[in-house]
Amino acid sequence: MQTLALGIDIGGTNTSFGFVDRKGHIFPKNVIATTDFPKAEDLARVVSEKALQQLSTFDFDASLVAVGIGAPNGNYFNGTIEFAPNLKWKGIIPLAKYFSDRLKVPAVLTNDANAASLGELYYGGAKGMKDFLFITLGTGLGSGIVVNGDLVYGHDGFAGEIGHTLIIQHGRLCGCGRRGCLEQYCSATGIVKTYLEILRNEDPGYLNKLNVSEIDAKSIYKKALAGDEAAFYAFNYTGELLGFALANSVAYTSPEAIFLFGGLAEAGELLFNPTILSFEKNVLHIYKNKIKILPSSLPENDAAILGAASLAWKELDKHSAKTNYEK
Amino acid sequence: MQTLALGIDIGGTNTSFGFVDRKGHIFPKNVIATTDFPKAEDLARVVSEKALQQLSTFDFDASLVAVGIGAPNGNYFNGTIEFAPNLKWKGIIPLAKYFSDRLKVPAVLTNDANAASLGELYYGGAKGMKDFLFITLGTGLGSGIVVNGDLVYGHDGFAGEIGHTLIIQHGRLCGCGRRGCLEQYCSATGIVKTYLEILRNEDPGYLNKLNVSEIDAKSIYKKALAGDEAAFYAFNYTGELLGFALANSVAYTSPEAIFLFGGLAEAGELLFNPTILSFEKNVLHIYKNKIKILPSSLPENDAAILGAASLAWKELDKHSAKTNYEK
Repeated sequence: MQTLALGIDIGGTNTSFGFVDRKGHIFPKNVIATTDFPKAEDLARVVSEKALQQLSTFDFDASLVAVGIGAPNGNYFNGTIEFAPNLKWKGIIPLAKYFSDRLKVPAVLTNDANAASLGELYYGGAKGMKDFLFITLGTGLGSGIVVNGDLVYGHDGFAGEIGHTLIIQHGRLCGCGRRGCLEQYCSATGIVKTYLEILRNEDPGYLNKLNVSEIDAKSIYKKALAGDEAAFYAFNYTGELLGFALANSVAYTSPEAIFLFGGLAEAGELLFNPTILSFEKNVLHIYKNKIKILPSSLPENDAAILGAASLAWKELDKHSAKTNYEK
Repeated sequence: MQTLALGIDIGGTNTSFGFVDRKGHIFPKNVIATTDFPKAEDLARVVSEKALQQLSTFDFDASLVAVGIGAPNGNYFNGTIEFAPNLKWKGIIPLAKYFSDRLKVPAVLTNDANAASLGELYYGGAKGMKDFLFITLGTGLGSGIVVNGDLVYGHDGFAGEIGHTLIIQHGRLCGCGRRGCLEQYCSATGIVKTYLEILRNEDPGYLNKLNVSEIDAKSIYKKALAGDEAAFYAFNYTGELLGFALANSVAYTSPEAIFLFGGLAEAGELLFNPTILSFEKNVLHIYKNKIKILPSSLPENDAAILGAASLAWKELDKHSAKTNYEK
């Protein structure tokens, strides 16, 4: 009997889901449009039906044992999505319950960055580690904090918001309503703002020649590789701030490593060199030269599903430890 | 049979120790001069002898079950004091082993702020809480982070250094060699610097009339109560920065409460009002109006020994959970 977890990644546009085994093998995954479902309950019904159908087609003895869900504003303790600005579903949505009712197995939910952190723990470079930070550099900056082998959820399920630590006084306006949040600088959108600021200050002529709407993190990366100084400096500045912020972060949980994930992290040395330089320059002496800053080893396209499935495995593992303890 | 823990607090000047029961009753405690012992091993011998002697005088059936030690630069994982600048003992000192060898019970060690956090958990206002921050505002700013009912030690045993997060760019020079650490502002020494800065800027005449060496946090407190504007503003500024820093701190572990301990925290509303105001102003919306900022309820004079004893109880409790699990 092969035991499988169902990993589900709820995004503002698409929802993808797939069965994953303990070793990290993903069976063909499915994608549906989140926006097709004005009611979350209907999405849960359709995903469940499709999943059960797929399960019945496997030519081996397979059993679904748990569901893991990565979703924006996901509350682990309640299994709910709460007031997610990027989803149509308003208020508090008991999504985990929708799935556990339909599929008759435990269903757990957390935000996508938390889920991906567990993906790194089960299937990536954090295997065997007990204390690490996981940072996603996408549209925003998401983070997961693993302490003593488990995710930090905090009192209310919303721990790990490093992207919303204030880093620059009177800085850039953030979607959260405050100014100077880290994610306004260290993210795919942040580096675009930085690049445009540099051009505006130093070379407005060049800026005028550009089609601003075409500028994204990837194009800045290509420009930097091609010798564009402003693009190179934008990566430098991003890394300097990220390194500074991470130097403060490690004073909380003293991790063994920090993993960087997401498009921006794929810029490699362009981002990692200034980040590590700034981190080591700014960090307290007791942490110097011992905390690794590493690229995530999760495959970008499958990280969300692997993370969601890992959340399911983690729940089963915690439960079995507890049951043994109670025996 | 009454089971007792031996709580030991190693300070740069004095070492105090005493037996503590599960309910937090401290049997008469002892104080010896740390500086009398050029060798840590000799201090361990004398403390052990005195403790055993005291134990034999109790008129009830008492049994020592564990030793907890709070010490500067204490490493929980190794039971060692490592390169403590405020102690005569240089290098790495295996202090926990000295005690367990002599007293034949488990001995554990961590830094004093971590130990006091556990004191708050076992005997103070954090009873029953699983996630909280504990901040000591003394000469420096010490901190302990409790997640899911246990202290965060991190990969190397040195987690929880919130006092050394960088808060002001190009700020005051810190003993750690960097500039702008939180503890240079939010501590008993920090508020003195702030007060003198204010006077220097606004009223150098008054400053010249003062005996600067007599100014400490307590005298600033008294001045503020007596209507001294600069002293009042020094508390305001300290609270503003502390609230700002704590607003960033909660984004890591989303605690239920933050406890403030130490002389400066005893200033009451003078410190708490601006701290809470600034915290609520700066904190991310998902944490607003739900995290309590509270005075520690540990008695100032006994907090160190209660904390050290709690460390011992925590170790026993973890061990018994593990033993049950392995059965």
